[in-house]
Amino acid sequence: MTAVACYQATAPDQPLTKGTLDRRELRADDVMIEIEFAGICHSDIHTVRDEWGGCRYPMTPGHEIVGRISELGSAVTDFALGDRVGVGCLVDSCGECAQCAAGNEHYCETGSVGTYNSTDRVDGSVTQGGYATHIPVSRRFLIRIPESLDPAAATPLLCAGITTYSPLRKWQAGPGSHVAVVGLGGLGHVAVKLAAAMGARVTVFSHSLAKEDDGRRFGAADYVSTAEDGFHRAHRGEFDLILNTVSVPLDTDTYLKMLRPEGAFVLLGLPPAPLSVQPGLLIGGRHTVAGSNIGGIRETQEMIDFCAEHGITAEIELIDADAINDAYDRVVDSAVRYRFVIDAKTF
Amino acid sequence: MTAVACYQATAPDQPLTKGTLDRRELRADDVMIEIEFAGICHSDIHTVRDEWGGCRYPMTPGHEIVGRISELGSAVTDFALGDRVGVGCLVDSCGECAQCAAGNEHYCETGSVGTYNSTDRVDGSVTQGGYATHIPVSRRFLIRIPESLDPAAATPLLCAGITTYSPLRKWQAGPGSHVAVVGLGGLGHVAVKLAAAMGARVTVFSHSLAKEDDGRRFGAADYVSTAEDGFHRAHRGEFDLILNTVSVPLDTDTYLKMLRPEGAFVLLGLPPAPLSVQPGLLIGGRHTVAGSNIGGIRETQEMIDFCAEHGITAEIELIDADAINDAYDRVVDSAVRYRFVIDAKTF
Repeated sequence: MTAVACYQATAPDQPLTKGTLDRRELRADDVMIEIEFAGICHSDIHTVRDEWGGCRYPMTPGHEIVGRISELGSAVTDFALGDRVGVGCLVDSCGECAQCAAGNEHYCETGSVGTYNSTDRVDGSVTQGGYATHIPVSRRFLIRIPESLDPAAATPLLCAGITTYSPLRKWQAGPGSHVAVVGLGGLGHVAVKLAAAMGARVTVFSHSLAKEDDGRRFGAADYVSTAEDGFHRAHRGEFDLILNTVSVPLDTDTYLKMLRPEGAFVLLGLPPAPLSVQPGLLIGGRHTVAGSNIGGIRETQEMIDFCAEHGITAEIELIDADAINDAYDRVVDSAVRYRFVIDAKTF
Repeated sequence: MTAVACYQATAPDQPLTKGTLDRRELRADDVMIEIEFAGICHSDIHTVRDEWGGCRYPMTPGHEIVGRISELGSAVTDFALGDRVGVGCLVDSCGECAQCAAGNEHYCETGSVGTYNSTDRVDGSVTQGGYATHIPVSRRFLIRIPESLDPAAATPLLCAGITTYSPLRKWQAGPGSHVAVVGLGGLGHVAVKLAAAMGARVTVFSHSLAKEDDGRRFGAADYVSTAEDGFHRAHRGEFDLILNTVSVPLDTDTYLKMLRPEGAFVLLGLPPAPLSVQPGLLIGGRHTVAGSNIGGIRETQEMIDFCAEHGITAEIELIDADAINDAYDRVVDSAVRYRFVIDAKTF
């Protein structure tokens, strides 16, 4: 075991503090990553504050990780020392079930292993995430980060990128399709960039017009304030896909009315209460209400390669580790444009 | 105009009665169909009893129609006198919008024209359906019925067939997929036959085991009573597609728990109240709740050809026209195995 510097949560109501955690000796197919950057995701906050339950303290969060390989396991031949790699929400799965074989490690039939607060399949330890100087990860869960991408700004793509890219692909965003993105935050701003790069026409729905200039700069052709009564009326039957990136409760039926036939309204955030859905709004135009959550490793690499090809990264605010707790408060207050990334040199 | 014999509703609370209705002179691309058989669909009952509102009396329902061409419009060259043809829920659409061009006449951007109680695009008259001896229909809305299919038993396919075939195709039922059908009635029994013929493994969920023998004969590999507490537990994560053919309220979340990753729960019946859906059950496995309603003309022909290839027809009870009102009561009581068809010689 090797002790490495980290930031960690010790209790739900306490700020994260500087500490150390033990990293395992490399397994045959592991690499050690010397972390350069770690992104802050809202789900880090939910977890360490135990808002979803089950947090095992002390806990080091972080599932948006970019760094360089500093050590190779004995069986690793497809990566080299110094390669820049990324790690997202997953660090292991059985590798043998039909879902793993299909590249859907996030659906692993025996349960995938999350980057933090999950149970290691080999030694039963609790996984610890990216707010640290180093992390050992199986080569099967590494994403190659092209040198052309700014590594700090690419970091949030490991979660926010795949979370938005995967449903855009599944529901075939592209030339001729109209995509709406609800909420221009950490997920939403990446969704706008990706959908526009895929060739779709993009409309943002936001609770105000405060970020309209940003939205248009990211590629939105239209920007709508949902604070206006009847805002949906001018958009009836317009969208093939509506990605809802916010977790506040919305009136689902209002959004269903804005779908074209065969269109889909897809939740990426987790609202706190059940949705109410008028069945007639589903049946007439064969509309879909769905959810979506991250994606597999193969598709995550595809997403990063797409971003490199199109010059897409997240909009970030780079912070030192001692600013994490303030950053958490600003994430909760939706007061960040658009994603915090921690400089790992400061852990 | 030509007066033809029919059965018609004159008021929401009155039985259907024998009468006559005026059929238009043939337009250039019309054919006259001498009707052989007309099916009874639950939506006929909803309409003539004005349960959905907007019924314009006197009203002749019927959107499952099979007969032979008895007269050809001047511009019709692709059909011949004596051809056996069918008509389903639609008799017209603009023919020019993107949806019509794509074969989705049911999504026509200017509104499609229903077989009955709809407004004719040319003369503004109210369309009248298949409970009659003859009906004029544009060649664009005719389905060719192969002589190998029993014409009476094929009649319900024009509605119940396409309503189940289209979602089975969209959600890719086939070898290796598991399809559940909720309810073994008019729609459900056709869904079981079609899904089994496509190569899917089929499970029926019914409120009792009373029709289990039938279900297995139609092709179901498994038959589950939903009257058992916790009936879903043995089927968690099992289905790629669940077709809900019943319109009574169900607990949507229970069915979502039985979906595989990327699986879909699809409503074909129209429940009377909003669905309640736990968002977490959508997001984790990227599940879908959707609705579906009939299909376009091209796909309806494809469905009929598929049924001819696989020897699939509906299970029917053939009745004379004077039994329509009794039949309506039995449909409402779910006391028919499985679909009523009226012998048009008795109108």
